[in-house]
Amino acid sequence: MLDNDYRGTICIEDIEIGMSRSLRKMITDRDIEMFAEISTDHNPVHLDDDYANETIFEGRIAHGMLTAGLISAVIGEQLPGHGTVYLGQSLKFMAPVRPGDMVDAVVTVTDMDIGKRRVTMDTHCEIDGKKVLKGEAVVLAPSRKFD
Amino acid sequence: MLDNDYRGTICIEDIEIGMSRSLRKMITDRDIEMFAEISTDHNPVHLDDDYANETIFEGRIAHGMLTAGLISAVIGEQLPGHGTVYLGQSLKFMAPVRPGDMVDAVVTVTDMDIGKRRVTMDTHCEIDGKKVLKGEAVVLAPSRKFD
Repeated sequence: MLDNDYRGTICIEDIEIGMSRSLRKMITDRDIEMFAEISTDHNPVHLDDDYANETIFEGRIAHGMLTAGLISAVIGEQLPGHGTVYLGQSLKFMAPVRPGDMVDAVVTVTDMDIGKRRVTMDTHCEIDGKKVLKGEAVVLAPSRKFD
Repeated sequence: MLDNDYRGTICIEDIEIGMSRSLRKMITDRDIEMFAEISTDHNPVHLDDDYANETIFEGRIAHGMLTAGLISAVIGEQLPGHGTVYLGQSLKFMAPVRPGDMVDAVVTVTDMDIGKRRVTMDTHCEIDGKKVLKGEAVVLAPSRKFD
């Protein structure tokens, strides 16, 4: 974990279109092993160097949903953060993420309906500025009315 | 892990529309703690009973992407399985998944383009027959031509 951004809640009343938050994290072998245990996905492209070297990826890669988890972490911890209800997410996997890669997960507000507390966000993950995963998130944001 | 289905590869030449595979897994506290570590998402709705009891969920819930990981496990290990390239996934989160819930993740082929090795699948997770997550996956399936 390299991000030092505040983690907590941004209520719908304080969210604006264009607002953005991010985190940066290195994907480790331990992350991949733990994700395999949680998901039961032990596909050797994630876990077996010899097998993975013979695939089109030419080496082990992280599970796509592991990388996607970084997007949900930005949403759940920063924007809107605690109190958010995650409604939907689209994911397009564009390039592999490998053990040792430093991933930036970025979330940017693109549309909102304050009355319905509904926020739409552009979401992506990148490595050295190259997008490896992109999509759109839709959430219900918390409101100060419910504090 | 309660599924005993074969894990390996189904090549594009052997895939048919309507073909379906699934797995069943109980979501545990340990799963949620590990997913929090991997993703850096320590939102207290996942980890803090006292906090979570005061939310609309009235108790701790699993990270949405943790549940989504079960779908990707069916895809990566069973249908099409090893050798699959995951291109995209949509996710609609419909109901919370709680520690102790037994989740069925189900993947069903809805469309395919054999020439392009592209397969579209309906994907969902359910608990006691009630859908808690649904969406669509698009993948490139392996081919016997490349064996």
